Amino acid sequence: MTNKKEISAGIIIIGNEVLSGRTKDINTSTLAQWLNTLGIEVKEVRVIPDVQSVIIETVNSLRKKYNYIFTTGGIGPTHDDITAESISKAFNIEYGFHKDAYSILEKYYKPGEFNEGRQKMAKMPVSADLILNPTSGAPGFNVENVFCLPGVPSILQSMIGGLKNKLIGGSPILNITISLRTVESEIANSLTKIQNNNKDVEIGSYPFFRAGKLGVSIVLRSSDKNKLDQCNLQIQKFIENKNIEILKEL
Amino acid sequence: MTNKKEISAGIIIIGNEVLSGRTKDINTSTLAQWLNTLGIEVKEVRVIPDVQSVIIETVNSLRKKYNYIFTTGGIGPTHDDITAESISKAFNIEYGFHKDAYSILEKYYKPGEFNEGRQKMAKMPVSADLILNPTSGAPGFNVENVFCLPGVPSILQSMIGGLKNKLIGGSPILNITISLRTVESEIANSLTKIQNNNKDVEIGSYPFFRAGKLGVSIVLRSSDKNKLDQCNLQIQKFIENKNIEILKEL
Repeated sequence: MTNKKEISAGIIIIGNEVLSGRTKDINTSTLAQWLNTLGIEVKEVRVIPDVQSVIIETVNSLRKKYNYIFTTGGIGPTHDDITAESISKAFNIEYGFHKDAYSILEKYYKPGEFNEGRQKMAKMPVSADLILNPTSGAPGFNVENVFCLPGVPSILQSMIGGLKNKLIGGSPILNITISLRTVESEIANSLTKIQNNNKDVEIGSYPFFRAGKLGVSIVLRSSDKNKLDQCNLQIQKFIENKNIEILKEL
Repeated sequence: MTNKKEISAGIIIIGNEVLSGRTKDINTSTLAQWLNTLGIEVKEVRVIPDVQSVIIETVNSLRKKYNYIFTTGGIGPTHDDITAESISKAFNIEYGFHKDAYSILEKYYKPGEFNEGRQKMAKMPVSADLILNPTSGAPGFNVENVFCLPGVPSILQSMIGGLKNKLIGGSPILNITISLRTVESEIANSLTKIQNNNKDVEIGSYPFFRAGKLGVSIVLRSSDKNKLDQCNLQIQKFIENKNIEILKEL
């Protein structure tokens, strides 16, 4: 990729429930697709346990490596929600009640319902910026380039819209998918040649089974529309020459 | 966890398609649940791009950290399948045709169909051990404690059964899930107390929305059945005392 303004991101999924296999992570896909539209490319994802030292180490190592870091999970009211305290330690910022977060939550709950557990959700690095939560009140937050979001997919999804103005993106990453009734080995040589002729387009080849039949999806990605179209033209030509059936994308 | 024979694993998901958000990774869940039954705990997952230097660096760093490493993806016939060559370099073993893999594939395909692309799938570290593939022929392989599997979930799933004898497990990790009609903040204090009294049981709390209603799943995990049962008893007692409705697990 020769995106001159290449902006990178890392994602840190915090949660034993993903490591145990109980929960399948879908937040990576939500975040990555949304970031692509802003021209931000996810370069690495790490899934780590609810262990303070691991969270601190991972955040401190990745936040220097990428433009933006997104964490998911561990900002709820229970004992295993340790992301906010860990981020405070990673940045060496006091962990305590965040004035604005406290006042948001105080207003969100009915009088008498703002109990100790709920109050915990206002505890975070005291100087953090808030990320508003239109679904369930409790805000996320960011410190510098680290953005902390909840693990529940529907809540995370409702919060990312509000982040847009906090991120400086690059050229959006465009993509074209072509699904074919073929097997990878039949097209491997041609794809290699086309990839060598189109260094600025990333060509991926992904086999699939659908309705009992084999197929391959070819995915072209680039931030340069001309180069993407040029590469697509070459792909279309070789598909025609080889007389391969094109399938509808699901 | 005080599993005295704690056996650890790391998973490396190799693939731009996961980082771009196009594909949701489900192999982690498959591997982790299966490994738990063998008493092997997944401690970390990394999703990395199809870039040789990154694959080498990640494999070499994680294989020293955990008992077992599993990689998924990048062992097919196309130009973006670079896992086998990268593993060869990581271990400094010659990358070339693996005699047994070549002979398996030669027999698998009809005469004349064992083309260049398919032959590529026999290229790997020449001294690797093979992992048989009952679904689509092309074997995976392992070098020392690094096991390389394909990315297509159904194929991966069909191959892991054959791995069992290659792994030395620990005490299986047992788990109990209790789903409740409540919100986390209502049970946070009680859970904290129970967690403090049951250090050898990992207690997780996971909020969910189901049919428009809020709920929380409490997950208890331990390799010690007695301690797990003891902890479960304390949880059941507090649920009863608080008069919280128990939901059927989906």
